Amino acid sequence: MTLPEYVSHQQLKIDDTLRRLVPSESTPPESIHKAMRYSLFAGGKRIRPVLCMAAAEAVSDSPVGIESAACTLELIHTYSLIHDDLPALDNDDLRRGMPTCHKVFGEAMAILAGDSLLTLAFQVLAQISLEPERKVRLMEELAVAAGTVGGMIGGQVHDIEGERKHPSAELLEAIHKAKTGALLRASVRMGGIYAGADEDQLSALASYGEHVGLAFQIVDDVLDVEQPSEALGKTAGKDAQQQKITFPAVYGLARSREMAEEERMAAHLALRPFDERAERLRELADFIVHRKA
Amino acid sequence: MTLPEYVSHQQLKIDDTLRRLVPSESTPPESIHKAMRYSLFAGGKRIRPVLCMAAAEAVSDSPVGIESAACTLELIHTYSLIHDDLPALDNDDLRRGMPTCHKVFGEAMAILAGDSLLTLAFQVLAQISLEPERKVRLMEELAVAAGTVGGMIGGQVHDIEGERKHPSAELLEAIHKAKTGALLRASVRMGGIYAGADEDQLSALASYGEHVGLAFQIVDDVLDVEQPSEALGKTAGKDAQQQKITFPAVYGLARSREMAEEERMAAHLALRPFDERAERLRELADFIVHRKA
Repeated sequence: MTLPEYVSHQQLKIDDTLRRLVPSESTPPESIHKAMRYSLFAGGKRIRPVLCMAAAEAVSDSPVGIESAACTLELIHTYSLIHDDLPALDNDDLRRGMPTCHKVFGEAMAILAGDSLLTLAFQVLAQISLEPERKVRLMEELAVAAGTVGGMIGGQVHDIEGERKHPSAELLEAIHKAKTGALLRASVRMGGIYAGADEDQLSALASYGEHVGLAFQIVDDVLDVEQPSEALGKTAGKDAQQQKITFPAVYGLARSREMAEEERMAAHLALRPFDERAERLRELADFIVHRKA
Repeated sequence: MTLPEYVSHQQLKIDDTLRRLVPSESTPPESIHKAMRYSLFAGGKRIRPVLCMAAAEAVSDSPVGIESAACTLELIHTYSLIHDDLPALDNDDLRRGMPTCHKVFGEAMAILAGDSLLTLAFQVLAQISLEPERKVRLMEELAVAAGTVGGMIGGQVHDIEGERKHPSAELLEAIHKAKTGALLRASVRMGGIYAGADEDQLSALASYGEHVGLAFQIVDDVLDVEQPSEALGKTAGKDAQQQKITFPAVYGLARSREMAEEERMAAHLALRPFDERAERLRELADFIVHRKA
C-alpha cells in the first residue's frame, strides 16, 4: 500500500468509527447531534487519529480496537475548531470550504456542540475495551494535552493575547507548542500507550510528535500566505489580517520552509529506536511537511 | 454536628480542594486561570460535592480522598453555568450576586474557561489515587451525566427548544431529569462508586438522587417566582420573562410545593436499605426542599 492509499484506508476506518460513536441524527435531542455530526463530517483530514494508529502500529503488530481511542483525538480537535470559529473568538464563517457550525446551527448550539464533543471524548475512553490502567493513562494524556497548562486551551489563550503583542520567536514557539503541538504529541503517545509502549518508546514518540507538530504548524502558516482560499477551504490571509503571530511573520517564508524541513528530519531522527514498523510514521512526517492544503 | 455545621465543614474542605486542583492565578496563561477561579469561587453552595461525599459516607466509614473526586462535579457544574450565562444562551449578567464570567473577562475567555473546567474535571479523575477500575467507572458516570443523551447538555438543548413550545408536564420532566437531575444523580452514585458500593446500593443511591434532583428543580422554580433577586443572587422572575417551562407554570405554586414534598419523601424511602450512616443524605434531602435561596 502506498502512503496515500494507507491514509485513505485509515480515514475510512476512522469515519466509520466516528459514525458509530456519535449519537445518530435521529437520537433526541436531534439538533445537538446534527450539529456535532455536521462539524465532525465536514471533511477533516483525520491527521491526529491517523498518527495515533500509526504510532500504535510502530509498537505492536495488531492493536485491535485502537480506532475508538484514536477517534477521541478527532472529537477534541473538532470541538476546538467549533469554539475557535465562534464570533467571540476567531469569527470564521468558513471551515474546510463549508459554513462553520454557528453559521448553520446558531451560536448557542455551536457552543453546546463543542461542549458535547469534548465530553463525549472522555465517555468513549471510559467505555472502550482495554485494561483500566491503560484507559486511565489515555484519559490523563488527552486531558492534559487539551488543557490550560502547556495544552491546547493554554495555547489558544496565548494566541488571543498575542494578537496585540510584538511577534517574538519565543512567543511564537510557546503558542504553537501548546496550541497544536500538545494534541499532536498526545496523538502519537496515546497510540503508544494503547499498544503497550515502554517508557523509552513513549519518549521517542513524544519527541517525534513534538517535531511533527511544529512542522505541521509552520506549514500551516506558510500555506495561509501562499495558497488561495479555495485550496485551503478556509479564509486565506486571515492570519495577517488578524495580526496573528506566524512563522512567516517572524522568520520570512524562505526560512520558515527550511525550518519545516529541519523539523521533518528531527522527527525521523526521533524514530531511530523503532524498526520498519514505524515506516508509516516516517512517511506521515514527510506527508505533513510536503502537503499543499 | 448539626446539619448546617456539617455542610459548612464539607464546603470548607471542598473549597480547599478546589483551590489546590485548579492552577493558581499566577500560573501562565494567567488570564484563563483567573477566569476559572473567579467563577469557581463566586459563592457556590457546593451541593453536588456535598451530596457525593455524604453518599460515600453512607457506604463506607472512611472514604479517604473522596474530596477530589467530589470536586469534579463542581468543575462540571461551574463550566455549565459559565456557558449557560453567555449572551448566545441565557444572556445573564448576574450569578450568585456577582457579574457573570463573560461580563468580567469577555466572551472569548468565558467560553475557554468553561472548556477548561470541563477538561480539568476528567484530568482530576485520571489523577486521583484510586484503583483504575473505579476511576474509569467514575469517569463514565460523569461523562454520561454531563452529555447529550439523557444528560446535562441534552436537558439544556431541550430547555432552549422548549422556550417556544407549550409547557406540557412531559416536556418539563424530560428537561429537568436531564438538565439538573442527571448530574445530581451522578453526584451520589459517584460517591457510592468511590466508596465501593455494590449494585443494590448504587441503585438505591440513583433513586435517591433522582428524587432529590427533581425536588431541587421544583424548589428552584418556586423560589424564582417567590423570592426577590437579592435573596437569590440572580435575576428573579427570569424564567417567566424567558417563557421557560417551569413547575409553577405547569402545576401552579401550591401543587409545586406539594410535589417537592412528595419527592423529599420518596428520597427518604429510597434510602431504606441504608443504616444510620445515610443520616446526612436524609437531612440533605430535607435541607434542599426547605431552603429559601
